[in-house]
Amino acid sequence: MDTRVRPLASGVRAPDFDLRGWSSAHLERVEQALSGWVAADAPAGLGDAMRYAVLDGGKRLRPLLVLAACEAVQGNGHAALRAACAAELIHAYSLVHDDLPCMDDDVLRRGKPTVHVQFGVARALLAGDALQALAFELLTPDDGTVADIVQATLCRLLARAAGHRGMAGGQAIDLASVGLALAEAQLREMHRLKTGALLQGSVMMGAACGVAPAAAGAALARYGAAIGLAFQVVDDILDVTADSATLGKTPGKDAAQDKPTYVSLLGLERSRAYAQALLAQALAALDASGLDAAGQERTQALRALADMVVNRDK
Amino acid sequence: MDTRVRPLASGVRAPDFDLRGWSSAHLERVEQALSGWVAADAPAGLGDAMRYAVLDGGKRLRPLLVLAACEAVQGNGHAALRAACAAELIHAYSLVHDDLPCMDDDVLRRGKPTVHVQFGVARALLAGDALQALAFELLTPDDGTVADIVQATLCRLLARAAGHRGMAGGQAIDLASVGLALAEAQLREMHRLKTGALLQGSVMMGAACGVAPAAAGAALARYGAAIGLAFQVVDDILDVTADSATLGKTPGKDAAQDKPTYVSLLGLERSRAYAQALLAQALAALDASGLDAAGQERTQALRALADMVVNRDK
Repeated sequence: MDTRVRPLASGVRAPDFDLRGWSSAHLERVEQALSGWVAADAPAGLGDAMRYAVLDGGKRLRPLLVLAACEAVQGNGHAALRAACAAELIHAYSLVHDDLPCMDDDVLRRGKPTVHVQFGVARALLAGDALQALAFELLTPDDGTVADIVQATLCRLLARAAGHRGMAGGQAIDLASVGLALAEAQLREMHRLKTGALLQGSVMMGAACGVAPAAAGAALARYGAAIGLAFQVVDDILDVTADSATLGKTPGKDAAQDKPTYVSLLGLERSRAYAQALLAQALAALDASGLDAAGQERTQALRALADMVVNRDK
Repeated sequence: MDTRVRPLASGVRAPDFDLRGWSSAHLERVEQALSGWVAADAPAGLGDAMRYAVLDGGKRLRPLLVLAACEAVQGNGHAALRAACAAELIHAYSLVHDDLPCMDDDVLRRGKPTVHVQFGVARALLAGDALQALAFELLTPDDGTVADIVQATLCRLLARAAGHRGMAGGQAIDLASVGLALAEAQLREMHRLKTGALLQGSVMMGAACGVAPAAAGAALARYGAAIGLAFQVVDDILDVTADSATLGKTPGKDAAQDKPTYVSLLGLERSRAYAQALLAQALAALDASGLDAAGQERTQALRALADMVVNRDK
C-alpha cells in the first residue's frame, strides 16, 4: 500500500490534493455539458423551466462523485460526463417535484423562486417529468462514444437509484413519517433510499464507466453507501447548527415540520460522532478497494469529497 | 409480394388473422408480467399506488404494438415483453400526472377514482415518478436475457418518446394551447409529440428487439407515425360521436375545456377521411417494409392493430 494514500484524519484534507482546483475544472465541464444538453429545444416554455431547474445552482455533488469514481477506475471520461449530468438531472427533477405545493410547498430554492412559482405548477410538474426522461436520454447516445454495455449498466444503476427502491421510495417513507417517532433503523432506511441511493448510484455509475475488479466495485459501493448516509446526518446537524446566511436556506425547518432527524434521534454530539464514523468507513472502503495499488492515487478525489461531505459547513 | 398480404380495405379485418385471439394471448402475458414487475416491494404505500395506476385497466395498445412489431422482425420475445411493459408504465405514469389537480383535475378514470383521489396528491405524484424510473429498470435486466445493445437501444427510444421532444413536450404544448386557435400543422405537432411519440416509440422498441434491415426499420417508423396520429384523430372523433357508456368516459370533454381538436379544426367528415388516409399510409408502409416477403405474414398483427385503432368505437 502506498503510504501517502492513507485515511484522512477527520477534518484534514489530503495534503497533496487540491480538491478546489480539481472540482472547479470538472464543474466547468459539467456546467457546459448541462447547458448544451438541457432542452433548449423543448416546446412551449418547457425548455425554459427545465433549464431554470438545472442550470446555475447547487453543489453538484453527484456529478463530482461520478467523475471522481470514473477517475478511480480510469474509465471513459465522456461516458462519465454524461452520467454526471444524468445524475444531476434526476436530483434536479426531484427538487422541482419536492417543492410543489402538494409536497413541501417551497417558494424559494437557492435564493430564487422555485420552478412552480416561476413557471406555474403544471409546467413545473412536466419539467420534472421531462428531466427524468432526459437523464436516460443522456445515457444512451447513438454516436458510438459510449459502449452498449456501459449505456445499459448506467441506465440500470440510475433507474434503480431513482425509483421505488431508491429515491422515490425514500420520499414516500418521508411523506408517511411526518409526526412519527422513527427508530434509528427506520430513519436510516428512509435516508438510505431518499438521499443515499442516488449518491451511491452516482459513485457506481462512475465506476461503471471503466473496468474494475469486482472487489473494487464492491468497495466503491460501500464507500457510496457510507457517504450517502453521512451526507444526510450532516444535513441534519447543519439544520440545527448553521445560521441561515451560511446555509443558504432556513435552518430549523425539519424540526419545525416535525420531521424525524438524526439530531432529534441521537442528539448533536452522537450525530457528529456518527458522521465521523461514516467518513472513516468510506475511507476504509477505499483503502480496501485495491485501486490505489502501485503508487497510484486514483481515489484521492473520492477521499477528498468524502471529507468535504462530512466536514462542510453548508 | 404475397398477394394474401394486401392493404386492408378500411373497416375490414384481415380474413386470416384473429386479432382478438392474438391480443388475448399476448395480453395475458403482459398482465402477468406487469403484476410481477410493478413494485409490490415499494415502501410506505407507494407500491399500492403504483399497482393501482397500472394494473387491471386500459386497452394496452402500446404493449400490443411492441409485441406485434417484435413479431414482424422475429425478435427476442422476452425483451419485447419487458419493452411492452415499460411502454405501458410510461403511459400509466402520464395518466396519473395528467389527472392531478394542477393538470386536468380528473377524479375518475376507467370508472375508478383517479390515483390522487385514492392515495392523495403527493403519493400520486411520487407513484408517477417511480413508474417512469421503473420503466427504465424493466429495460435493463442484469440476468443476461436481453443483449446490451438491445437494452441501450430500448432505453434510448423510450427516453426520447417520453421526454421533452416526445410526450412531455406534447403535454407542454397542450397546456399552452387551451383556448387558442391552432393551425392544423400546430395541432398535428402537438399530437405527434403528446400521443404519437410513445405509440411510434412502442413500434420502434418492438423492432429493436430483433434485427431488421434499415429500410424495414424506417418503414415501421412510418407505420408508427401514421397510427400514432390516427389514434388521436379518432379520439377526437369519438369525443363528439360516442356516447359515454360506450366510451367509458365523458364525451365532449375536449370541446368543453376549449381544447383544439381535429373535429373542431376539420369538421367530422374530413376528420374521418383523414383517419382513413392515415390507415392507408400505415398499411402502405408495411407493404414497403419487405417484412412480408417470401409468403410470410409477419406484419399481420400490426395490420390488424392499425385497422383496430382507426375503426374502433371506443
